[in-house]
Amino acid sequence: MVLGLGTGSTAAFAVARIGELYSSGQLTNIVGIPTSKRTQEQAASLGIPLSVLDDHPRIDLAIDGADEVDPQLNLVKGRGGALLREKMVEAASDKFIVVVDDTKLVDGLGGSRLAMPVEVVQFCWKYNLNRLQEIFKELGCEAKLRMEGDSKPYITDNSNYIVDLYFPTSIIKDAEAAGREISALEGVVEHGLFLDMATEVIIAGKTGVSVKTK
Amino acid sequence: MVLGLGTGSTAAFAVARIGELYSSGQLTNIVGIPTSKRTQEQAASLGIPLSVLDDHPRIDLAIDGADEVDPQLNLVKGRGGALLREKMVEAASDKFIVVVDDTKLVDGLGGSRLAMPVEVVQFCWKYNLNRLQEIFKELGCEAKLRMEGDSKPYITDNSNYIVDLYFPTSIIKDAEAAGREISALEGVVEHGLFLDMATEVIIAGKTGVSVKTK
Repeated sequence: MVLGLGTGSTAAFAVARIGELYSSGQLTNIVGIPTSKRTQEQAASLGIPLSVLDDHPRIDLAIDGADEVDPQLNLVKGRGGALLREKMVEAASDKFIVVVDDTKLVDGLGGSRLAMPVEVVQFCWKYNLNRLQEIFKELGCEAKLRMEGDSKPYITDNSNYIVDLYFPTSIIKDAEAAGREISALEGVVEHGLFLDMATEVIIAGKTGVSVKTK
Repeated sequence: MVLGLGTGSTAAFAVARIGELYSSGQLTNIVGIPTSKRTQEQAASLGIPLSVLDDHPRIDLAIDGADEVDPQLNLVKGRGGALLREKMVEAASDKFIVVVDDTKLVDGLGGSRLAMPVEVVQFCWKYNLNRLQEIFKELGCEAKLRMEGDSKPYITDNSNYIVDLYFPTSIIKDAEAAGREISALEGVVEHGLFLDMATEVIIAGKTGVSVKTK
C-alpha cells in the first residue's frame, strides 16, 4: 500500500502511529510518500520505507490535517508551509482522509480568520501580494508576506515565499472561482484551497469522534 | 515611459538600441523593467535606469522576441529560459511588441518542432514530466528535461527546472485549452504559451519588414 504522509501537528501523530504499527509488524508492505522534508525526516527516523511521486505516481491513501474544513469538505491547508507538496501528493491519492478537531470546521473557507496561504516565486513578490489582495478587495482581504522570525521571509521547501491572505470579516463564497483567479496570476505556484479532494474527514470533538464522507 | 525589456538574441538588439538612444539623449524619461538577470546586466551596463514590477506594476510598452508566432499572434516563448519573468512583465504591459524573423511564423503553436517550455518545481519533476507528456499523448508529444551541458538540469532564475515539450508531427489545436490543462498540474509554475498578449508583431523577411497587429 502506498501511503501519502501529511505535514503538521495532527499529521505527525498519524505518521507516528503508522511507524508503531509498521515496527510491530501489524502493518506490512507499505511505502510512504512524505509531503515535506520535515515529514520525510520523521518517517525515516521511524523506519517507514519511503519513496517519491516520481517512482509511485499513484497513491492508495493519504492522511493529513487541515486548517479549515467547510460543509462540502473543501479545505484550507498550508499554514504549515507545505501546501504545494501536500497538494501534489493528495491529488494523486485514491482516498484522502483528513483528521481535524472541531475547531477547524467553518461555514465557508476563510471563516477561521486565520491565514489562507498562497505560494509565490520570490521574484516581485510584492507585486503579486498586491494583486492577490486586489482579487479579494471586496471581501476586505489583507495580504501579508509570511515571515520567519522578525526580519526575513519564510522560505518553502521549493525556495518560494508564502503570501498569507486574511479575511477578517467575510468568507470566500465561490471557492472554485477564487482558486481559478489566484492560479491565473503569473508567479503564483500554488494556493491553499484544496477543493473536492478530501474523501473523508475525521473530526475530534469534546463528545467524541465523528466521520464525514462525500 | 516604463519599458519592459525582453530576453534573448533578438531582444538584446532592442535593448542595445534603447541604450544608444538613451545615452545620446534622443530618448529621455524612461525606466526599464528587465525580464531576466541577463537582460538586467545588459541594460545596467548600458546605463538604462532600471526598476521592478514591485515599484512599477504598470508598464507602457514591452518589446521581446518569440520562438513561434501563429496567425492569431499567439506565441511560444521561453526557449531562452526566462518565460516566467517575461510573462509577468509582458502581461502587465499596455502594449507588447514582438520582433521576429519570418522563420518563427507557424500555422499553429508547436509547429516549429522545437521546444515548448514548461517551468516546474524541482520536486518530483519526473512525475510532472510524465503528466505533461500524458496531456498531449494523442499529439505524439515528447517531454524532455532541459539540461545544462550533459550532466545537470538547467535551472531558471527562479530555481526551477524546465520541461521542454516537442510536437514532432502535430500542432496544438486549442492553445487556450492546452494552457489551462498544463496550469492545472500542481508543481507547474508557468508555461511558454503566450496567448492573446502580443498587440503587434514586427516580422523581418528576405524582402523587408512587415507588421501585424490585432
